[in-house]
Amino acid sequence: MPESRQQAINYAKQNYSQFVEEMKTFLAIPSVSTDDDHRADILRAANHLVSALKGLSFERVEIHETKRHPIVYAEKNCGKPGAKTVLIYGHYDVQPVDPIELWESDPFTPTQRGDHLYVRGGSDMKGQIWATLKAIESIQSAGSLPVNLKCIFEGEEELGSPNLEAWIAGHVNMLACDVVLNPDTGMLAPNVPTIVYGLRGLVYTEIKVHGPAHDLHSGLYGGVVHNPANVICMLIAGMKDHDGRITLPGFYDKVLPLSPEERSQFERLPFGDEDVLKQTGAEQLWGEKGFTSLERIGARPTLDVNGIYSGFIGEGSKTVIPAWSMAKISMRLVPDQDPVEIREGFIKYINDNIPSGVRWEFKEHSSNKACLVDLNSPAVHALTKAQETVWGTLPVYKREGGSVPVVLTMQKLLGVESVLTGFSLPDDNIHAPNERMHMPTWKLGIECLIHFFYNL
Amino acid sequence: MPESRQQAINYAKQNYSQFVEEMKTFLAIPSVSTDDDHRADILRAANHLVSALKGLSFERVEIHETKRHPIVYAEKNCGKPGAKTVLIYGHYDVQPVDPIELWESDPFTPTQRGDHLYVRGGSDMKGQIWATLKAIESIQSAGSLPVNLKCIFEGEEELGSPNLEAWIAGHVNMLACDVVLNPDTGMLAPNVPTIVYGLRGLVYTEIKVHGPAHDLHSGLYGGVVHNPANVICMLIAGMKDHDGRITLPGFYDKVLPLSPEERSQFERLPFGDEDVLKQTGAEQLWGEKGFTSLERIGARPTLDVNGIYSGFIGEGSKTVIPAWSMAKISMRLVPDQDPVEIREGFIKYINDNIPSGVRWEFKEHSSNKACLVDLNSPAVHALTKAQETVWGTLPVYKREGGSVPVVLTMQKLLGVESVLTGFSLPDDNIHAPNERMHMPTWKLGIECLIHFFYNL
Repeated sequence: MPESRQQAINYAKQNYSQFVEEMKTFLAIPSVSTDDDHRADILRAANHLVSALKGLSFERVEIHETKRHPIVYAEKNCGKPGAKTVLIYGHYDVQPVDPIELWESDPFTPTQRGDHLYVRGGSDMKGQIWATLKAIESIQSAGSLPVNLKCIFEGEEELGSPNLEAWIAGHVNMLACDVVLNPDTGMLAPNVPTIVYGLRGLVYTEIKVHGPAHDLHSGLYGGVVHNPANVICMLIAGMKDHDGRITLPGFYDKVLPLSPEERSQFERLPFGDEDVLKQTGAEQLWGEKGFTSLERIGARPTLDVNGIYSGFIGEGSKTVIPAWSMAKISMRLVPDQDPVEIREGFIKYINDNIPSGVRWEFKEHSSNKACLVDLNSPAVHALTKAQETVWGTLPVYKREGGSVPVVLTMQKLLGVESVLTGFSLPDDNIHAPNERMHMPTWKLGIECLIHFFYNL
Repeated sequence: MPESRQQAINYAKQNYSQFVEEMKTFLAIPSVSTDDDHRADILRAANHLVSALKGLSFERVEIHETKRHPIVYAEKNCGKPGAKTVLIYGHYDVQPVDPIELWESDPFTPTQRGDHLYVRGGSDMKGQIWATLKAIESIQSAGSLPVNLKCIFEGEEELGSPNLEAWIAGHVNMLACDVVLNPDTGMLAPNVPTIVYGLRGLVYTEIKVHGPAHDLHSGLYGGVVHNPANVICMLIAGMKDHDGRITLPGFYDKVLPLSPEERSQFERLPFGDEDVLKQTGAEQLWGEKGFTSLERIGARPTLDVNGIYSGFIGEGSKTVIPAWSMAKISMRLVPDQDPVEIREGFIKYINDNIPSGVRWEFKEHSSNKACLVDLNSPAVHALTKAQETVWGTLPVYKREGGSVPVVLTMQKLLGVESVLTGFSLPDDNIHAPNERMHMPTWKLGIECLIHFFYNL
């Protein structure tokens, strides 16, 4: 191993405790983007990154305002002719914490128990940003950077990045690069380095069904009007059949069938139903007939109610017919489903099935296509080698169930591929109570990123 | 008209404004029984009645503790040999106020707008209690009572009166009477005095469906586990068919069919679909095929979701598969449905239809049979005559959609019939925001009750 690379690795090992302590300050900021009460916290998190980037002697460290939460931009030139430019993407916003009562420690007081650090946003993904910054710090402690770096850290990912694409479109020259490093995915297990090459798309909707003009007494009016709570249940129930197949018009029309090769790749993953059962804590798995769990997650579309509300949900009983009901319903898409067509099918289904005399409203929270990343790029090779060096084994290549819309945006607007990595684990409870980071994996993640930058 | 009766009516007319002002103090007490935060208010309301009854020189004015909210008891002997004894039933508890944001004035600040006084519990039924007390006061101002009186005012009616039956069973001798006056129903319209002779029963359930051990990320796990929010929608949707018929096993087995005579009685009611449309503010009515609206309300059973909740219902989006869901579901029963059999059919339906791998829990909030009151009792005749005197027209006889379980209890334990009256109107928004009382009707109601007591 060249001397500077070894020095950088040594620096990371020696300063690990210090890295963790610094990170805790960043993680303690409750940068919840969905809730306007946390607007000041979002700004604190952005400013915290500005300080950290200035501390690493980045140039042009800027806060770019958007309609809602700002984007942090920074760049650093390594001064080496012909050096590649890596654009590092991250998001410093985090999911809401409710149901708060299920957290075993305060969501924004990073708390170590065993090998895990429990904190909202640790795994998804402030911890991943911090690992990247500490990899850069380690490299700089051993000499100059091997590549040019640009960073964009947004504050709206958990909102579906409503302002990112327009901002990127307006800064195409500034963001010019060879490859994007996106450390917002994870590994299948602590000893299974993973490169994600497929991501599902997402159409996230909200519907509201209106019935009577106001809440009614269910004794006086039960039986003579449509109850919007019953109606929304009927609508949702009709969106799937008993085999788990989605019944919205045209939903599967453009779904690429899985090739025998892809199916055998899925089978080779060191991960199966038992693992999924354990992670979910469900008594039994269930899904679309004819597919394995990993195929269902990685390569099949789905539809889930993320939230539903109507009427009286307090303690005890209230004999009310609610005036309205609402549900948040999201669909995960796979190649080549078109979000616009999916949305239209969803709207058509409701229009075709909602009873007359009941009104409904539609809102779309986010919408993006699925994507597949080219596995033969130099950056994927650099990452593969880095993972092999650190974990002593070649990575698995995986299609994942989540959405990273920015990958599509980078392809479309900057013409570059993203390399998707990250050191979260499937049981990190992201988007759920007791989110956590597996610290031994995070530590190795820093070393992996050091190697990645040198390998490029 | 005998002189004392006329004096009593005059007293009521002269003191109307004073009555209203006094009543506002009573109505301002937020005696919400479903919420333990209002425990002290419930006690204040009970004590307020104690003072009022003592002010009317009732004897044996007592507060009887129950497991939750107390019963106020009082009695007064008129000293006339052979006089009848009337047991007055009322409830001083009120419905919760949410959704609070839809109230146009504070729910517990009685506010007059036009002919209406807006306040939670005015129509249902603290205002009805007050009208009764003011009728008694008016009679006493003109001389002695024509009947013996006993009062029970409970604080748990909106909870389904969980402790009333046991308490009545333990005080059968104390409560001995000839008839019960229950002013917890209403009139069809301001000029349509009404006597209710039929009431629906109620089975009010709550179900909770459990899926994964904790909330899951819908990207990482969407498609491989049952989503409890989707499952509860599927279960609820299957409880009714597209014609509004309830599909629970055995649900209609014991429903008494409507006789041609009953159907023509329903047709004669000066009230129809247009009125129901107006009161509900719905764009269109809907219900079980083959029945009119009034038949559906008065003589057909129904099933309604009163509340439903699962997952993330805040602003924005959260890509979560919820760990659990819950719904409050109530069924209105008609003669001769048996609440125990209905509950068993409900449970059987869910057990037969819930997917494996999903757990569920059942809770019953209240359960009571429907009832029909004998229209040929002397008390019904006394009320009919009183209504004719005050409004100049004979009352209509009506079967109502709500439940008054205490009527059944009085039949069973005390062997007496109830006469069901009251001066609420269908558009009083009971159990809804902006509950109100129509004050001209309330004023005439006091006069009607004065006549009723003299007529007995």
